[in-house]
Amino acid sequence: MSNDQLQMLLTQTPEEGFELAVKLAQKGVEITQPSEEIRQMLRPVYSRNADSLIAVSQVVAIHFQTVAAANNYWRMQTPQYWY
Amino acid sequence: MSNDQLQMLLTQTPEEGFELAVKLAQKGVEITQPSEEIRQMLRPVYSRNADSLIAVSQVVAIHFQTVAAANNYWRMQTPQYWY
Amino acid sequence: MSNDQLQMLLTQTPEEGFELAVKLAQKGVEITQPSEEIRQMLRPVYSRNADSLIAVSQVVAIHFQTVAAANNYWRMQTPQYWY
Amino acid sequence: MSNDQLQMLLTQTPEEGFELAVKLAQKGVEITQPSEEIRQMLRPVYSRNADSLIAVSQVVAIHFQTVAAANNYWRMQTPQYWY
Amino acid sequence: MSNDQLQMLLTQTPEEGFELAVKLAQKGVEITQPSEEIRQMLRPVYSRNADSLIAVSQVVAIHFQTVAAANNYWRMQTPQYWY
Amino acid sequence: MSNDQLQMLLTQTPEEGFELAVKLAQKGVEITQPSEEIRQMLRPVYSRNADSLIAVSQVVAIHFQTVAAANNYWRMQTPQYWY
Repeated sequence: MSNDQLQMLLTQTPEEGFELAVKLAQKGVEITQPSEEIRQMLRPVYSRNADSLIAVSQVVAIHFQTVAAANNYWRMQTPQYWY
Repeated sequence: MSNDQLQMLLTQTPEEGFELAVKLAQKGVEITQPSEEIRQMLRPVYSRNADSLIAVSQVVAIHFQTVAAANNYWRMQTPQYWY
Repeated sequence: MSNDQLQMLLTQTPEEGFELAVKLAQKGVEITQPSEEIRQMLRPVYSRNADSLIAVSQVVAIHFQTVAAANNYWRMQTPQYWY
Repeated sequence: MSNDQLQMLLTQTPEEGFELAVKLAQKGVEITQPSEEIRQMLRPVYSRNADSLIAVSQVVAIHFQTVAAANNYWRMQTPQYWY
Repeated sequence: MSNDQLQMLLTQTPEEGFELAVKLAQKGVEITQPSEEIRQMLRPVYSRNADSLIAVSQVVAIHFQTVAAANNYWRMQTPQYWY
Repeated sequence: MSNDQLQMLLTQTPEEGFELAVKLAQKGVEITQPSEEIRQMLRPVYSRNADSLIAVSQVVAIHFQTVAAANNYWRMQTPQYWY
């Protein structure tokens, strides 16, 4: 995503929205550490550390909140229990 | 959930919404560490570490916020104290 | 709460809402570590560690946001300063 | 606050709202560690540790979001730049 | 800010709103550690520790969410892309 | 950004909004550690530490929530699935 511009937050499905949240989390890392070489060096460490993986998942969760709100939660119709 | 596409955020009950939040938290880990073998190796460690368990619970809490909002908090009717 | 299904997020009072937030935080732990035996073993450790207690309190705070929003903050009437 | 029931989230001022947020953060700790004796033992440790203090401040911040929203941010009037 | 009462969350600009968020983060620390002497002792430690600085920045970010919402994001006018 | 005043939260694109979120995260650090010399000394450490990078990404994510909400998620038009 390094060279990608972030165009918009709308996606067709929650699945694509989740992928966008992952990209946003990565983008937050890339801006602080632009060297792909160093990021690749770090990967074997954090990807085998449970606490690091949980922390990554948390950043994704925060971005997914944003993306889901932007897409109005991909609601197709008013649910039955709507008031 | 690895092969599951995330279809929508609407669920019938808060219980199902909580389960979805758990799956979203797992999905955030799986994307960073796709190897199920390595994830299974890590499990005995973090599942017996109180701080890791609390951290997992936090990620679930963030996703549950999103899922609950998407479902308009599963409100069946306007509560009495509604203004 | 292990056997309890989460029925709804509406509660009569903020106090009950806080209790629900605590249960949701516990539920997030139970799903990752279903063994009550192991959870009981961990308890003396994290319940005497200030940082663990603060972390638990944070998860409760996140769930309380959700429960409070679901209950429209238990507002009985429009406050005076409402615009 | 141990014996206090949480009655409502409305307060007269942001200052009182902040105090309520602090109480909610403490309440989250008290539920996990009900012994005031143990909590008093822990206090000298975390109250002199910068990272613990920052963590406490974060829990307060999350609860203050909830309390501020419940009070509609204590807005007395529509600000000039309102749209 | 120790002696300041928190009067309101409205500010003229985002810059002032950010300053308020910083004060709220400090206030959360001061309530747990009221001694300015001890806080001054801790300062050289956390202000030279990257992880502590990032954690402080996170607390500020959470309060800035609250202050920004309270000020309706300091919007002067409806943006072009408003729907 | 040290000398920049934060003028407004509106940006033309999500990309610019993300850049603003990064600046806000940095600003939160600069206020606690105003010395650029010390910040530059810390940089090689945290920029090569996976957990620090993830923590920075989390602060950016929180600010991006604020900026995205301020910009009404840069929606150009009501999406098809709008209710």
